[in-house]
Amino acid sequence: MSSGFTFSLVSTDCGARLGEFRTPHGTVQTPAFMPVGTQGSVKAMRHRDIEEAGAQIILGNTYHLYLRPGDGLIARRGGLHRFIGWPHPILTDSGGYQVFSLAERRKIDEQGAEFRSHLDGSLHLLTPESTTDIQARLGSDIAMVLDECLAYPATREAAAHSMERSIRWAARCRKRLIDIRSGAARDVGATNPGQAQFGIVQGGVFQELRAASVDATVEIGFEGYAIGGLSVGEPIGLMYTVVGDTARRLPDGHPRYLMGTGTPEDLVECVARGIDMFDCVLPTRNARNGQLFTSQGRLNIKNARYAEDDGPVDPECRCYTCRTHSRAYLRHLYLAGEMTAGALNTLHNLSFYLDTMRRIRDAISLRTFDTFRQEFLRSASRLSLDS
Amino acid sequence: MSSGFTFSLVSTDCGARLGEFRTPHGTVQTPAFMPVGTQGSVKAMRHRDIEEAGAQIILGNTYHLYLRPGDGLIARRGGLHRFIGWPHPILTDSGGYQVFSLAERRKIDEQGAEFRSHLDGSLHLLTPESTTDIQARLGSDIAMVLDECLAYPATREAAAHSMERSIRWAARCRKRLIDIRSGAARDVGATNPGQAQFGIVQGGVFQELRAASVDATVEIGFEGYAIGGLSVGEPIGLMYTVVGDTARRLPDGHPRYLMGTGTPEDLVECVARGIDMFDCVLPTRNARNGQLFTSQGRLNIKNARYAEDDGPVDPECRCYTCRTHSRAYLRHLYLAGEMTAGALNTLHNLSFYLDTMRRIRDAISLRTFDTFRQEFLRSASRLSLDS
Repeated sequence: MSSGFTFSLVSTDCGARLGEFRTPHGTVQTPAFMPVGTQGSVKAMRHRDIEEAGAQIILGNTYHLYLRPGDGLIARRGGLHRFIGWPHPILTDSGGYQVFSLAERRKIDEQGAEFRSHLDGSLHLLTPESTTDIQARLGSDIAMVLDECLAYPATREAAAHSMERSIRWAARCRKRLIDIRSGAARDVGATNPGQAQFGIVQGGVFQELRAASVDATVEIGFEGYAIGGLSVGEPIGLMYTVVGDTARRLPDGHPRYLMGTGTPEDLVECVARGIDMFDCVLPTRNARNGQLFTSQGRLNIKNARYAEDDGPVDPECRCYTCRTHSRAYLRHLYLAGEMTAGALNTLHNLSFYLDTMRRIRDAISLRTFDTFRQEFLRSASRLSLDS
Repeated sequence: MSSGFTFSLVSTDCGARLGEFRTPHGTVQTPAFMPVGTQGSVKAMRHRDIEEAGAQIILGNTYHLYLRPGDGLIARRGGLHRFIGWPHPILTDSGGYQVFSLAERRKIDEQGAEFRSHLDGSLHLLTPESTTDIQARLGSDIAMVLDECLAYPATREAAAHSMERSIRWAARCRKRLIDIRSGAARDVGATNPGQAQFGIVQGGVFQELRAASVDATVEIGFEGYAIGGLSVGEPIGLMYTVVGDTARRLPDGHPRYLMGTGTPEDLVECVARGIDMFDCVLPTRNARNGQLFTSQGRLNIKNARYAEDDGPVDPECRCYTCRTHSRAYLRHLYLAGEMTAGALNTLHNLSFYLDTMRRIRDAISLRTFDTFRQEFLRSASRLSLDS
């Protein structure tokens, strides 16, 4: 049995790709940005808010959902879509990134990663097989393989060693999913028979390691390919170079997902280098801290200069926040500690991100992407309105 | 110049009154419940959420808005409606209740109340004149007079003394508003020329003091009359008796507002005693703590029994929360500390309250209020689904 996942490349323009992929829960236009719904909810948002902002797919964090409320409970509810009431596509990560972030609370070897829960200190083992099973129970539309996430900077030797382990883990994840699909792995309790699985290219900032990782990952064969291990502290120019070099080697007929990135400028620059999918906590986390992305740059709503500013956050934005409220009111809500501040700010930032993706897709479609890119970077380069 | 406020009594049924009042920002059907928007925002809600739940009017707290962001700043923005982006009616309280709650941080005499801000310890004076001016600058559609709020229990002597002071303060508030309307009070910076003002009946639980307070307050003359000093710890039966006795003495042609009450059962019982308007933090505050009001009684979403409950909070409710999410998911969000839990729970509780008011109005209109009341109390008497 194969997955229900298909990808079509519609057109390209100056390296940017317009496409779409189909999942059991609907179609996603690419380039796409996926809001992060760590615990089965995009923070401060209701589902209809992110639908309104233009989200076609969200990301769920396997580590968090596995620990609470548990993948078993979610599977008994019919899977993650039904449990959370979100009928559209969902991608889940492998949980590896969170486990590796636990520092002293985890131990990694060839088998997988042993870790202690941040909630109650209980001991758990995350392996290529177990993350595949957990994600099968969650029933996301796209599951990710377990990979080893290296800190930056890493030596070439460490990066090579880690990349090779990630390849072995990817092969085990793929084998496990094939066994689940065929019924050879019994009693896993998968809830989405059409689930796809993406491999992840590692190799740090070393071009030949990335190339070797691409070859080995494509050799295993997945429905899509992610680029992992970036946005971990390396210089931005180096990241763009690695993204461009790596994306170029990936097969055209599959979506390319750059994990955990980035700023609005990063999205445009990486689309220009052939990336189709993004996720990042930046728009949601920064919104809760009062930082807002606008067509004219970023602003921090706490700033005293907005105390009597009757204008909207972004005069070019059509989101509910910008249609309804002034900077003065949003500043008041933030300083007053009202949780509505987080909700209104998040709705705006996600709208800005998702609207940027829509404009990117329109530009590729009209073959004006390069002009769009130049203009976007010119306005975005006014990085802060508050400086 | 008179206010733009009018009240029409449409019909009555078994003591319950169906009516409507008009304000410069629209018409309100009574009996009405006013969600509490302390700092210019109903906690966890966006304005459109409370519109959707059926709110026609909200309450703002003068004490909080005066301290932050300040009535001057709000007046410069054109008044509270424009500042917060809420185009519908607003009632503001006088700030007295919050000041009296400050305990050691305030000192009361005939002139008014001196208090220290809970935000920065700064010293302020709230007088009948200053609260009238502040509310004129805020530009609410209904302003409240400053009254003295007694703790329960109070002696007859203390209640009499306090009630008489409240009458003197009410007269000063009225005089000040008349001076603002006529232009005799200059440079106040009022932002809503059609602002109405309600008097407040005090007198504790002493029937003859309440009667004297009604007479004196009506003698001064206001657009509407509130009953204050209840829901402060007295037995519920005593509260109902005082409400009934007091409401009966109030003139038919003006709205009657029971301040700071109450449970859904209180709303029905006090409508039966002739009350037209209510406000209370119960539905919003309890929602944030996980307590949900339903047609079958109350439930606490934290309870383990809901961990795998796929049903909605209330099968009879049509709110977004009940249409979209299960008890199991809401419990997960609450336990995971997601602020979306507060938003979804608040939307449900406000929908339940406002739907109850709509059903009350329908029943009065159909002259079936008594049947409605009996049935409502029978189901509401299953006070907790969790016991």
